[in-house]
This record gives sequence, structure tokens and C-alpha cells, in this order.
Amino acid sequence: MIADLSQSDLEALGARVRADYDAFRARGLKLDMTRGKPAPEQLDLAEGMLALPGNRDHLTEANEDARNYGGVQGLAEVRAMFAPTLGVAPAQVIVGDNASLAMMHDAIVWALLKGVPGSAKPWSKEGEIAFLCPVPGYDRHFAICEEYGIRMIPVPMTGDGPDMAKVEELVRDPAVKGMWCVPKYSNPSAESYSDETVRRLASMKTAAPDFRLFWDNAYVLHHLTDDRREILNVVEACAEAGNPDRPFVFASTSKMTLAGAGLAFFASSEANVKWWIARASKRTIGPDKLNQLRHVRFLKDEAGLIAHMDKHRALLAPKFEAVTKALSDRLANQGAARWIKPAGGYFVSVDVTEGAASRVVQLAKEAGLLLTAAGATWPYGKDPNDSNLRLAPSYPSLKDVKAASEGIAICIQLAAIESEQAKRKSKAA
Amino acid sequence: MIADLSQSDLEALGARVRADYDAFRARGLKLDMTRGKPAPEQLDLAEGMLALPGNRDHLTEANEDARNYGGVQGLAEVRAMFAPTLGVAPAQVIVGDNASLAMMHDAIVWALLKGVPGSAKPWSKEGEIAFLCPVPGYDRHFAICEEYGIRMIPVPMTGDGPDMAKVEELVRDPAVKGMWCVPKYSNPSAESYSDETVRRLASMKTAAPDFRLFWDNAYVLHHLTDDRREILNVVEACAEAGNPDRPFVFASTSKMTLAGAGLAFFASSEANVKWWIARASKRTIGPDKLNQLRHVRFLKDEAGLIAHMDKHRALLAPKFEAVTKALSDRLANQGAARWIKPAGGYFVSVDVTEGAASRVVQLAKEAGLLLTAAGATWPYGKDPNDSNLRLAPSYPSLKDVKAASEGIAICIQLAAIESEQAKRKSKAA
Repeated sequence: MIADLSQSDLEALGARVRADYDAFRARGLKLDMTRGKPAPEQLDLAEGMLALPGNRDHLTEANEDARNYGGVQGLAEVRAMFAPTLGVAPAQVIVGDNASLAMMHDAIVWALLKGVPGSAKPWSKEGEIAFLCPVPGYDRHFAICEEYGIRMIPVPMTGDGPDMAKVEELVRDPAVKGMWCVPKYSNPSAESYSDETVRRLASMKTAAPDFRLFWDNAYVLHHLTDDRREILNVVEACAEAGNPDRPFVFASTSKMTLAGAGLAFFASSEANVKWWIARASKRTIGPDKLNQLRHVRFLKDEAGLIAHMDKHRALLAPKFEAVTKALSDRLANQGAARWIKPAGGYFVSVDVTEGAASRVVQLAKEAGLLLTAAGATWPYGKDPNDSNLRLAPSYPSLKDVKAASEGIAICIQLAAIESEQAKRKSKAA
Repeated sequence: MIADLSQSDLEALGARVRADYDAFRARGLKLDMTRGKPAPEQLDLAEGMLALPGNRDHLTEANEDARNYGGVQGLAEVRAMFAPTLGVAPAQVIVGDNASLAMMHDAIVWALLKGVPGSAKPWSKEGEIAFLCPVPGYDRHFAICEEYGIRMIPVPMTGDGPDMAKVEELVRDPAVKGMWCVPKYSNPSAESYSDETVRRLASMKTAAPDFRLFWDNAYVLHHLTDDRREILNVVEACAEAGNPDRPFVFASTSKMTLAGAGLAFFASSEANVKWWIARASKRTIGPDKLNQLRHVRFLKDEAGLIAHMDKHRALLAPKFEAVTKALSDRLANQGAARWIKPAGGYFVSVDVTEGAASRVVQLAKEAGLLLTAAGATWPYGKDPNDSNLRLAPSYPSLKDVKAASEGIAICIQLAAIESEQAKRKSKAA
């Protein structure tokens, strides 16, 4: 532990780590660990889609022309294929265009302007409303709330999902209308909600009768190890608890097939699905059904989808191992950082010593290494402890991930030493 | 003129037309003239797109990977290709997903929740707001207003576009925030706005500083004759009049390439485009850029696009001729209906005698012929004169369009005779 070192040992370590940092910087690398997007090699796995569905292949199983207008809910064969992954019947699935974020955005916009099933009035007529935001969390969720003036209330993650005692207390406020959840391999902490967490979310008493769980199951099939985590079926759990309309489930194939040309999904109760179709029918005559057909032709069935995800895992797992190995090699038992080895998802979340995160990002930047801005994982971009870092190892090559991770570990160690030195100085003064 | 016939001539004509109607009904046809969507033959014109962009073809002109996330504004080469058609610089174009209706919907939603450039506050905080709705007009425009409680004020079309004296008077009300316009080959009247109409729309004084023209140029290249109508450039006209932010221009390739898998466009001033990108960036990480690339590979350039539209014209023009010929053959100089021969677009608009439109639709239905519901071309589905019919000849085969048009002409004539008979009866009573 750095904090336990004698003053001279601390100075000696500081000098060594500073030298390591200078050596790293001298390599003049340009590395980017900010982007949670698939690497070109992952996109190559779906390269065959670029010539699909192929000429004269434009009829659906229902013998409808996928080229023409219509079909707001999405093709039956696509809904059937993804329904098991979403944990609902095919009739409870909506297939959207290429972005589940857009579906989440639209759900909020429609809730604001129209209300959801169970609303006494549109949310925008309710005065100030609020969403619970487990932290660290996904900046694009928070950006939607900020855009529309929805107050965000951070709730700490515990390792089993959000702190449920806090959540249960906060939802007693009728202004709390919703909650962001990335229940499996969470962005960025990689933790998965325990069964008890899901059950408590499903059954808790909310003051708002139209409270919604925004259940962004973005990493539902994105395993990195043989420990394939499964979480409780939230649609079933909510129905059993007498709150069938509580969950809005979202997912997409963006990180399965093609990041910019995937399919997004909404899954929920019959009432919510009916509500969605009524709203979406005002917005569009139908989604891109050729892209839906393209997905069916390429993935074929659920087994094809699972097999495809294993290919992603083979490309991604070594990158995640490189990150956690570099962190362990340098930072084990230093008290400088805490992290978990992700069993899935797209991120490694690192908690450094309080007040050190932005210093780490700055040190890294000066050494040619881009990290996600400190604070990005908190509502309004403000981490009150300035301690969380989100590392995204998917996009760079394995070689670059290795180099970057070593650099990050050096920066974290150096920042921790600087921080300890400053603490001792201020105590001495 | 039916109204000028002697009573015995009217009875004789009535008996003949009733016999024609019974004969038509006896054919037991199942015809549908409701759907303004392309025929399978038109979609076949773009069949080559189903295998595009093709394997290993995923790099943009800027050497970016079109498969991955990003690029909210759309590919530069797509914006460049469509910019002349939209009448703006490529930097003033946004490429959306497959539905321009969705872009119109989102523009209204964002205006309601955020306001537009020049707004003092979000439109939803302004109390009741209103849109001008030239009639007959597009039911899906009106449905968006109805969905969000925007009051609709009908304005009659004149043959040169909307009645500008009425428009100029109505926009003196600050509650009037916008106006729906289909300026070329209008849906359904097929008329195009005169240069004077466009200039007056661009320069009129509006009480609302953030008034917007929702300029749905859906049929910008959809000519049916050699008389290729051009309308004044609304973005330029508004800029010249000192109202650069007034027009929101929309268009799409839905009726150029593939109805369900085309590209939608938004074009406007720099301020509006900047506003759009800021809003859209909260909703999505980017559009489907592979579909954009697919369009460029298939259409190649503006000349390719124009040539492709000529192929549509070759398929569509005979269908429109069949409709207007059938109407002329039976209804010329009867006083039973007025219509124009469209020079472009997707519809034939027919004004029948007051109170007769729903009777025509009913007669047609009983004879196996589906027509768009009477009133559909008016806000709230209510045509106060019950006189406008929208015929959509694009989808059925030419043979079916011929049969349907003869049937429609019979129904119109019969309804007119019934109406005249009822009038005389009520006078006599």
C-alpha cells in the first residue's frame, strides 16, 4: 500500500514511476481507449451481410415484400428470433432501426408529450420529474435526461446492481418516474444485477404509478468468459409482482452484427407494446425491413446468433485480459485502484483514489493516450469523488491495448503517489 | 350537366348508370386504390441494391468505415449527391434513416420540447399552438399534429398552392408556429406552388418569430410528363427575404429507390442544421451509413438518380393516364366532379359534388373497390364539404387501375345522380 510506505520509500517509488512514465511518454504513442465500439475485425465477422439479402430475396416468411412500406412492429421472423434473448413472446417485441438509444430517446419523448400506460398526464405536465441513475453509468443515458431537463439522482452500484435500499427510498417520491439500468455486464462497471436486485426492482412500491425501468440490456449476449451470466427475466418478475408495465426492455445488434447498421429492439408488456406501436405509427410508415431480412439471412436463428457472439468473444477476451493483467501487474496491493475483471460487456471500470481520476486522464493525455473524460460516467459529467475511470479496450488492436494498459497503470500509480505526497505535505504544513 | 337534365332524362340516366354499377359490381373484383406506395415493378428497378454495397466495400470517400458507429450528419458523398435536388450546399444537408416522416415528427417533437432557433421557449410551453394545413393535404402530416395537440387550421389550395391572402392573415396570430407544405405535385392535388406563392411564404410577416415552413418536397423528382415542374428554391427565397431559418426542407428516396429502405433528408439554414445535429446527437450515435453507401453505389450520381426516376415515370404515367381517361370518358361536362391531370406526384385528387364523397366511397366498397376514406385529406379526417377523394393508382397493375378507374367514375356519376334526385325530391316536398 502506497499509503503505508515510509517517506523515503515513497520518494524512491515516486522517482521510479516518474521514470517509467517519462519512458512511456518518450515512445510517442497515439492510443485511444475512449471508444466503446467494435474493432474492424469484429465488423469483418459480419462482412457477409454487405451482399445480403441478395437479388430477388425480398419476401418475408409471411410472403410480404420487405422492400415496400409498412410493418411498424417488425418482421415476425426477426421478432421470433430475438424473443428468447429478450425474454418475451414475439408479440411483445418491436424491431426498430439501427439504434436502441433512439428507442430509449423516443420512449422518453413520448412519455414527456403523451405519458405512458398508467400516466395521469404527460410527464412534461407533471412539474419537475426525476430519474434514478446508477453510477458509474452510461453517459448517453444521462445526456438524454439532461437534454430534456429530467433531474438525475445518482445511486451507487454495489457489485450486485444498484443499492436497493436507496432505490426503494427514492422511489417514494412521485417525481421519480424512471430509472436507467444496464442490468448485465453494466456499462461501465461490468457487474450484473443479482436476482434479488431484479426482484426488488420489480416489486418495490413506487409513488409514481407510471414509473418505468429503462432496462438497457445492451450486453445481453456479450460474454467474455465461460461464466455466462444470466439475470432474472425482468418482464416476468414485474408481471409476477403485479407491475407488468414497469419494464421497458431495450437491446440491439449493434455490437453483434454491424455497429452502425444493426437492429434495435423494444420488448415489454402487451399494454406497453400497444402504446409503442400507436406512437411509432405517427412517426413512420415502418422500419427498414430489408435490414431485418439481412439479419435473418445472415444469423439464421438463435443458435447462429450465439455462435456469432462467440467469435466476438474470441477477439475481445484477450484485450480485456491485457487490461486487467497490466493493472494487476503494477497496481496489485497498492491501494491506488480497484477494478473487477469483467465477465462480459465492453468496459473496464477503474476506481482510483479520490480526486485522482482527472489527474490520471491528464497524465495519460500528455503521454499520447486518450482516456474517456473523468466524470463521464456520472450525471452531468460530474463525479463528486473524481475517482472513476472508464476504459474501452474493444477498438484498438491487442498490441495497442497492451501498450495503453501499461501506460494507464503507470499514470494511475503516479497519480496515487502524487496524491499521497501532497497529503503528507499538507499534513506537515 | 346532370343538374340541367329534365326529370325524365335524369331518371333514364340514373337507370343506365345504376345498371352499369350493378354490372361492375357483378364482376366481383377486389381492387385497392388507397395506397400511395410503389408497385413491385417499381421496386424491381432498384433490385440491384439488395446485394450492395457488396463484400469488402465499406469504406467511404473519407476512408471511414461505414459499418461502425458515428457520422450523425450523413456521408459527405451522399450529401453532395442530393444537395442539388434539395437546393442547398452539402453542409446544409442531414441524411436520416428510412423515413422523412420520422424527420418531420422529430422536428416537431424537438420544437415542442426544446424550441427551434429563434424560439423564446419550447413550443410546448407556449399554450395552444397551431399549424396551417393546406387542404386537401397529407393525412400523416395531420396525424402528427393531432398526436401532439397542435391545432390545425385548414387553408384552401388554389391551383398555385395555398391561398396566400388567407395564409398571410392567419400568420398574424403568434400561436401559428408552422405550416405543412407539399410544394411540388402536392399530395393529393398534384398542383405545384407558383414562384409568387413561394416568395410570399418566404417573405410574409409572421407574428411568431420562430415560425417554420415544413417543406415536404416528397415529389421533387417525381415527374409524370415532359412538363418537369420546377419550383422556386425556398431556402434561397427565405434567405433573401431575411428569414433564413424559416424553411425545414424534407425529402426522401422512399419513392426513388426502395419504399421501406430509402434515405430521408433534412435541408435548411446553417443554424437549423446545427440545431438538428445537436438534437439528433442525443438520440443516436449515427444513421445507417451502409444504406447510404448502398445508395451511392447504386445511383452513382445526380444524373443516375434522374435517369432512375425516368424509369419510374415510364411505369407510372400510363396508370395516371388510365385514371384521368376513365374520369373524362364518363364524367366530362357532367358537373359531377373536378380533377386535374397530374404532371407528377402519386395521387389524383377528385372533387365530387358537395356531400357525395362518402357516398362514392361506400358505393365503391360495395362493388369491391377500396378507396381512401372520405375526409382523409382534411385535418381530423373531417372534410366539411364531404367532397374530396384521393385516388392512388401507383400500386395496382395497369389492368387493375383501368378497371378501378372505370368503377370509380361510375360510382361518382351514380352518387351525383342520387344527389340530384334527392335535391329535386326535397324541393318538391
